[in-house]
Amino acid sequence: MWVVLPQTYPTQDCSIARALEIVGERWTLLILRDAIFGARRFEEFQGGLGIARNVLTLRLERMCAEGLLERRPYSERPARFEYHPTAAARELGPVLFQLMKWGDRHDPSPGGAPMRARHRGCGGEVDFELACDRCGARLRYADLDFERRPDLPTSFRRGA
Amino acid sequence: MWVVLPQTYPTQDCSIARALEIVGERWTLLILRDAIFGARRFEEFQGGLGIARNVLTLRLERMCAEGLLERRPYSERPARFEYHPTAAARELGPVLFQLMKWGDRHDPSPGGAPMRARHRGCGGEVDFELACDRCGARLRYADLDFERRPDLPTSFRRGA
Repeated sequence: MWVVLPQTYPTQDCSIARALEIVGERWTLLILRDAIFGARRFEEFQGGLGIARNVLTLRLERMCAEGLLERRPYSERPARFEYHPTAAARELGPVLFQLMKWGDRHDPSPGGAPMRARHRGCGGEVDFELACDRCGARLRYADLDFERRPDLPTSFRRGA
Repeated sequence: MWVVLPQTYPTQDCSIARALEIVGERWTLLILRDAIFGARRFEEFQGGLGIARNVLTLRLERMCAEGLLERRPYSERPARFEYHPTAAARELGPVLFQLMKWGDRHDPSPGGAPMRARHRGCGGEVDFELACDRCGARLRYADLDFERRPDLPTSFRRGA
């Protein structure tokens, strides 16, 4: 069941509600996740997400219109496009990071955290408040590296 | 249009995907927002969100089943209940905070930020990496106070 939110919020001048107008849908955030980690082509998104092709087509179009993805041609015959995350999309990284941290804590994967955030150059693990458990520094998001659990495939298929 | 995500992710052992199974819906996050800021009763959620009563009923039930809200009686005749955020729900605060910061930046309210995060006891404004712009300290989420823009009503109606 899905009910469209009203487009105006008389009692709700709220930045959370406004952000959710743009990203408040699971596919959007999962597509952004894959785009931030390097997926670019339709088949990469589709293979990794297992999303219906017509649904993905609509989502990608809407995300371009909303300024989250930028469509760039990579082949003329046949005409083919890549979808690159914009600066605005990359700035949603902290939302995804906090969802990851919450998921690790409240619905942990049986095999351990699928992805770990590490302090670049130090290797310590980083908590949800950006503190490094090795050197104790408080970091910036730009200081993080993400390390996939070695037994797992990447979440999208490259070059499919 | 709403398509239910597959419940298993063969190539997707991912904490973001797992978290979105629980909170990947706009109403859920807006209900959590109001619960974290003090809404407890059906009418408070309903009045603030403008959500259809039957939709809200289903959402509250599901959020109780998922461990995000706890139902507590506050009246016997008639039987009436309050919905209290659990510890797991409060720990989604950082997700909401990051959505707020992103919304402030990318889809700003014409009247200025509807809510500001302040360093408790200092009054400085806090950025998305928890740095205080007055004293420069790097904070914890527990150090934040939230200040609603004075010309705005709260996002839910108390005691309705």
